[in-house]
Amino acid sequence: MSIKVELIASTPDAARIVAAAAKICYSPSGAADIMDGLTREKTASFLKMLRDSGHLSPFEHISFTFAVEGISRVATHQLVRHRLASYSQQSQRYVGMSGQTCIVPDSVLKDENAHALFIKQTESAWNCYKELIDLGISREDARFILPHGTETRLVMTMNARELHHFFSLRLCRRAQWEIRELARKMLILARDAAPEIFDVAGPSCVAEGVCKEAHPCGQPYESLEKMLSE
Amino acid sequence: MSIKVELIASTPDAARIVAAAAKICYSPSGAADIMDGLTREKTASFLKMLRDSGHLSPFEHISFTFAVEGISRVATHQLVRHRLASYSQQSQRYVGMSGQTCIVPDSVLKDENAHALFIKQTESAWNCYKELIDLGISREDARFILPHGTETRLVMTMNARELHHFFSLRLCRRAQWEIRELARKMLILARDAAPEIFDVAGPSCVAEGVCKEAHPCGQPYESLEKMLSE
Amino acid sequence: MSIKVELIASTPDAARIVAAAAKICYSPSGAADIMDGLTREKTASFLKMLRDSGHLSPFEHISFTFAVEGISRVATHQLVRHRLASYSQQSQRYVGMSGQTCIVPDSVLKDENAHALFIKQTESAWNCYKELIDLGISREDARFILPHGTETRLVMTMNARELHHFFSLRLCRRAQWEIRELARKMLILARDAAPEIFDVAGPSCVAEGVCKEAHPCGQPYESLEKMLSE
Amino acid sequence: MSIKVELIASTPDAARIVAAAAKICYSPSGAADIMDGLTREKTASFLKMLRDSGHLSPFEHISFTFAVEGISRVATHQLVRHRLASYSQQSQRYVGMSGQTCIVPDSVLKDENAHALFIKQTESAWNCYKELIDLGISREDARFILPHGTETRLVMTMNARELHHFFSLRLCRRAQWEIRELARKMLILARDAAPEIFDVAGPSCVAEGVCKEAHPCGQPYESLEKMLSE
Repeated sequence: MSIKVELIASTPDAARIVAAAAKICYSPSGAADIMDGLTREKTASFLKMLRDSGHLSPFEHISFTFAVEGISRVATHQLVRHRLASYSQQSQRYVGMSGQTCIVPDSVLKDENAHALFIKQTESAWNCYKELIDLGISREDARFILPHGTETRLVMTMNARELHHFFSLRLCRRAQWEIRELARKMLILARDAAPEIFDVAGPSCVAEGVCKEAHPCGQPYESLEKMLSE
Repeated sequence: MSIKVELIASTPDAARIVAAAAKICYSPSGAADIMDGLTREKTASFLKMLRDSGHLSPFEHISFTFAVEGISRVATHQLVRHRLASYSQQSQRYVGMSGQTCIVPDSVLKDENAHALFIKQTESAWNCYKELIDLGISREDARFILPHGTETRLVMTMNARELHHFFSLRLCRRAQWEIRELARKMLILARDAAPEIFDVAGPSCVAEGVCKEAHPCGQPYESLEKMLSE
Repeated sequence: MSIKVELIASTPDAARIVAAAAKICYSPSGAADIMDGLTREKTASFLKMLRDSGHLSPFEHISFTFAVEGISRVATHQLVRHRLASYSQQSQRYVGMSGQTCIVPDSVLKDENAHALFIKQTESAWNCYKELIDLGISREDARFILPHGTETRLVMTMNARELHHFFSLRLCRRAQWEIRELARKMLILARDAAPEIFDVAGPSCVAEGVCKEAHPCGQPYESLEKMLSE
Repeated sequence: MSIKVELIASTPDAARIVAAAAKICYSPSGAADIMDGLTREKTASFLKMLRDSGHLSPFEHISFTFAVEGISRVATHQLVRHRLASYSQQSQRYVGMSGQTCIVPDSVLKDENAHALFIKQTESAWNCYKELIDLGISREDARFILPHGTETRLVMTMNARELHHFFSLRLCRRAQWEIRELARKMLILARDAAPEIFDVAGPSCVAEGVCKEAHPCGQPYESLEKMLSE
């Protein structure tokens, strides 16, 4: 099963909002006048200038909300460490886990023996969960026995500044594969909704043309498109 | 001059986004299915239940962006202390202050003598600012002599959870009058854009029917409408 | 195995720091003069007044750092949702899990059949983990099969304002038992280090004398001491 | 008058706390064992490695609290925009401003004519403030007429990660002079209290040996010591 991501909400007219917010810092005019003068071309070139000069706070004014399914609790435990974001996640205290499965890593899928062991073990865990429930153990206690890779779902919201930070960390080849797959799908959707905001994004190899990692992977991406299509 | 507030961006379909995010916590279904089933009535009653049970985090998924003019730097110094928000504010380092004025408090406006003193003093401050600039002092240093009440403008974004917190503090009669006027205008606009989200809002006298302040003002608002029309 | 908590750092002279920070808001004096005048009694009564009037921001100036062991990843996934805190947690990508075990809920411990099932299942999971490692699967992928209740360890820091918020939520009987046990041990340590700061703490039944939960448990704690000794 | 800064609180044994928190991520041992093994030399070299590899989150576990006097409200309006920090600031609503003065920028001090204009204007503003008070205008309204450069005082707390970020921005020659002076004094105090934490700090010219500003000032600092002694 692979991660399923939907963009369920985003700020309309995102690029112009960012540009207007930035321009108000340096202009004697009000927001309405500023927005009137913002053509698509002016907006795009102004946003580029903002990014190049490191003036990133105006990108906080626009937000993107994603619904995510088919992701493991391994990955979400790491995901929710990003504190400048909002999360609503399926509860294992309240929702019975009978319809759900364990995410299988690719490395396991590709190895017949490993896969067989993995499947057998997850089935045994699910049986144990059900037996514990039958013995009167509560959901919130029975879940201790479920595999850490059990799938979960959540709704998350980040502003564009934090999204850029997230993409720079989590699209790096050194990131955990699952959260990287999540980031890839999020970027594709965000770019579609707000191309001027996300036309440059990702780890330093892509966004700045040079790897800035302390321990480089040795395989920098050649372009944003290649990164997204891999 | 009075504060001018515009809502320049907000999350579309806000009530359904909050409801879907909340429901994903307790449901085995995905976000798309959940949103399909959310009629206006179901959404409104579900949001009420969320608020009543103190489950406020789903309200973080929707955001509101305001452009504000005609507010003093006295008020914005206090405003930006709300840390769960994003601000882009006009710079006094880069923008010449020649077109701007000082906000006059109502108590001063109503007292002829005070008003005369106030106007004379602000004019003298502006003259001094210009003379300092003429002497070669930079804008960023000349502004030290400007009145603290000098008007400024900014773009600010808050999510609905933080907005509710903001309204509960800043619509109280004990709040500074200017930030209270700002809050009043923000709530009117936010309610118009997302009525189900803000049909109950404000200090405890309005939102909970009982004053919870340590030092009550003694004049609780009778209703949200009265609070907004005062 | 039960949770092990140590307080490894805290702000010295915590009560006086909070009091001095609060007093600077309302006083024409500087911090040094203010601190000189703060006897233990004056400090304690001033802190009580701050809390009673809801002026909580000065409590942010003091921090407490805890080292935690013997806690499940079930509990830490929930714990790290508290965003106004700092965490450093043991990595399952880098640390082999061979020496670790699964936390056993009390409800399972007390039921002989459930306990037997649970132990058998966790052993089978550990064997599977080792077999996957032996087949060449990486630690970061093999861990998907480990029980969600696998123990972990972490260092966490919160300021006193956030700690009070944490205690109000997580010491409630309705909180998950493991994070409640963590909160109980944290409060005992924090109180020992800064009694004036934490002499009143916990859910509303204890801290305010009345339950404010939407769905009360029906068994309010009679006192802070009883809550801590249960 | 120049800014007066005191370090009134900081986490004891700061370097070892950061090192222990970081080591727990990659070690099968608990915090107590880790701390026992941390000599001064091991700690210092480990912290250097952390910084070089960009693993900055462990630096959040230690905090520093400063009491600041003799700073203008111009500077503090900008200062409090750093949201990952805690502030307690003197209130102009509650504290009469009679004993306070206006901060005079160096550029004004050095120009006899400008200085004379400045002094005359601030005196006139203070007289107007008092006259307004005498007419019955409240402090919170009379303060609108005070110069924006009026001195204020505050207590602020930042963790070491945020302090490093603050120093990188605010010790740059392009930062506003007053907040730069504040940052300089803060760094001197923080380094004294925790030398291993702050032996490398400041803008990219100092901390990384190369200017990364979009608009370089052209006068990179040669060393941290030169930056602090200027």
